[in-house]
Amino acid sequence: MKIALTMENSQAAKNSIVLNELLTVTAQSNDEVFNVGMSDDQDHHLTYIHLGIQASILLASKAVDFVFTGCGTGQGAMMSCNAHHNVVCGLAIEPSDAFLFTQINNGNALALAFAKGFGWAAELNIRNIFEKVLLSGCECGQGYPIERALPQQQNAAILNQVKLAVAKDNYIDALKSMDPELVKTAVMGERFQACLFNNAENQEIVDYVRSILN
Amino acid sequence: MKIALTMENSQAAKNSIVLNELLTVTAQSNDEVFNVGMSDDQDHHLTYIHLGIQASILLASKAVDFVFTGCGTGQGAMMSCNAHHNVVCGLAIEPSDAFLFTQINNGNALALAFAKGFGWAAELNIRNIFEKVLLSGCECGQGYPIERALPQQQNAAILNQVKLAVAKDNYIDALKSMDPELVKTAVMGERFQACLFNNAENQEIVDYVRSILN
Amino acid sequence: MKIALTMENSQAAKNSIVLNELLTVTAQSNDEVFNVGMSDDQDHHLTYIHLGIQASILLASKAVDFVFTGCGTGQGAMMSCNAHHNVVCGLAIEPSDAFLFTQINNGNALALAFAKGFGWAAELNIRNIFEKVLLSGCECGQGYPIERALPQQQNAAILNQVKLAVAKDNYIDALKSMDPELVKTAVMGERFQACLFNNAENQEIVDYVRSILN
Amino acid sequence: MKIALTMENSQAAKNSIVLNELLTVTAQSNDEVFNVGMSDDQDHHLTYIHLGIQASILLASKAVDFVFTGCGTGQGAMMSCNAHHNVVCGLAIEPSDAFLFTQINNGNALALAFAKGFGWAAELNIRNIFEKVLLSGCECGQGYPIERALPQQQNAAILNQVKLAVAKDNYIDALKSMDPELVKTAVMGERFQACLFNNAENQEIVDYVRSILN
Repeated sequence: MKIALTMENSQAAKNSIVLNELLTVTAQSNDEVFNVGMSDDQDHHLTYIHLGIQASILLASKAVDFVFTGCGTGQGAMMSCNAHHNVVCGLAIEPSDAFLFTQINNGNALALAFAKGFGWAAELNIRNIFEKVLLSGCECGQGYPIERALPQQQNAAILNQVKLAVAKDNYIDALKSMDPELVKTAVMGERFQACLFNNAENQEIVDYVRSILN
Repeated sequence: MKIALTMENSQAAKNSIVLNELLTVTAQSNDEVFNVGMSDDQDHHLTYIHLGIQASILLASKAVDFVFTGCGTGQGAMMSCNAHHNVVCGLAIEPSDAFLFTQINNGNALALAFAKGFGWAAELNIRNIFEKVLLSGCECGQGYPIERALPQQQNAAILNQVKLAVAKDNYIDALKSMDPELVKTAVMGERFQACLFNNAENQEIVDYVRSILN
Repeated sequence: MKIALTMENSQAAKNSIVLNELLTVTAQSNDEVFNVGMSDDQDHHLTYIHLGIQASILLASKAVDFVFTGCGTGQGAMMSCNAHHNVVCGLAIEPSDAFLFTQINNGNALALAFAKGFGWAAELNIRNIFEKVLLSGCECGQGYPIERALPQQQNAAILNQVKLAVAKDNYIDALKSMDPELVKTAVMGERFQACLFNNAENQEIVDYVRSILN
Repeated sequence: MKIALTMENSQAAKNSIVLNELLTVTAQSNDEVFNVGMSDDQDHHLTYIHLGIQASILLASKAVDFVFTGCGTGQGAMMSCNAHHNVVCGLAIEPSDAFLFTQINNGNALALAFAKGFGWAAELNIRNIFEKVLLSGCECGQGYPIERALPQQQNAAILNQVKLAVAKDNYIDALKSMDPELVKTAVMGERFQACLFNNAENQEIVDYVRSILN
């Protein structure tokens, strides 16, 4: 899988810790990681609002398959992601949350808390969360408990339909409806652009992002 | 405040436990509770998809001010709520999550896990979560840590704008875009209807719901 | 109740945070607090080994009724306390742990983690733990679930007997059997001595401590 | 390693779940498991008091190297184990607790909660805990954070000395000082006896246990 990691200003200083744990896990899972948010406190300033826009663009364009994100508590990043019709984002406080999310909800993004509960062994907790998503050995969406797999799979599909139904009919229209400065800030980072432009499969989205940057 | 509690089929049997804890807390906070989801396994069948639709309609119509919801892990209910432009729903695993959500994100809904981690003392954990939202003695939206109040309040406001921007322009259109059976099932319960029809301040939404029921 | 708080070197810098939360709770519960461990990084150096000796002496002499302690994970402080026949010390990671410990185990000490999981809202978690012990409104030792009260009370009593049985027959002999430097370091702080000498009801223990200090 | 698992009456029905997770992990770690406590609700009745006595005898005689135990919250089993001078028992609520305990405290027993927080995915949490102890790939006692290894190793050694100092001088005397019925009940199970008699390296303890059983 292609995996994006994106973090915002309040916890940007922890990006190297989080990235390191993710790379440790993907070294085993053979997934590819794109660190598209803030890499430290001095980096191009992003809020959790921008993280959601980034996640939506990268997933809609198929530049990546999954997004790990987060903020102080994870709630802001999670809600910002879920604002977009094509992002289905859970919140994982500890490893079992991540496992259940992959089995029951089978979404494409997961938000973590990088300040709440972040003390000794927090890096271990984060690694364990990454492991449950990337190395569990179980195919995603198998349901938990297994005998509830069918309704869980149905509900996951219906959620996608509902999100699509209530959203603007056209994705580019949705992007255009947001404050242009927000979108511009979200896509201005070099690492974000490299990830998008090198991997996107949807030319319309790429063209729109390029138009914003000009 | 007027508060809705809504639960789905997988954990419906725990509704009386959860409702009881909520009523214990609101007896002190003087908030009014509407139990609008499933009250037991035999009740009108709802999934977490319906919970999100219920939350959206009750909040959009101002029939209630806040919604507590949940499912096995809380993730489905949380994402289903956040699918709607007017619902800002956090996920609380333990009391501190709830407190930080009220201070930082200041949303209008909170999802809980009614199966994951639900063992001895789970009812106490749920009560503590309700207390942090309803009895903390702190006004919501004051920020945490306090010195970050201003950007946190700004981001909360921007999230609302983004959610509005990407949604269909008209709320009734969004309701109409969903599978009518989903909406009908969401609003068919007597307790839901009593809550909506007795408290809603938006006649257009009420009329639309009545039209679905006929 | 008379309550001791005692912390060791690795987390001494957090003593003012923890003490402040404890005092906030005891202002409501009308319990008296003695801060007998390290108050900051520069204070008289104590390890979790000393915390257990302090707890044992203060409880054996009835200078205090309950001890809150902790270290990075709480495990060292907890095990060090439980090494002594007269200390029955639980470990509380979050508030429900504390409540269940008071109801089921009804011990006289509780260890907390001051580094593991200690991030945003950790001070709130600690306050909630103190509240569950001091302000729950339930008498301790009532059992949980209530129908298991009788065997739980019996087991708590038997644990005391077992601890007494395997310990040295005479408490002063046990104190004398430890490395004298350990005991001396444990009792050398002014705040510890003030707590012990002003409140102890067992003259033999007081005399022994005074003899060590000379 | 030789590993004992021992559980008491209140959660005996979960023994097969817990044992299954432990065996899944030891199949990878090549450790040997002895299930010496209650295997179901109908089995020979044990309380957490007996679990501590079992742990102490098995570790003192070197019949096993490590003990996993627990009860509803884990606190009773943990305190009952720590009552004995030769058992150094932590409490693990989630996997990071287990990892830190092995690195910082390097004890020989770990208690788990089999009712508190035991809901969906509890079996996964337990497996993760076992993995952190048996499959972490780190040697135990390396310290956390690593720069604190030396004082942590020193404190672990001093704790053993203190526990030995305050205990009765002779281990068999300690065993004899307890209510003989308690010890007899603790050692009466067939699986416990098979573990002890086939693996113990201390004949004096074996002889004493045999004398109790006659």
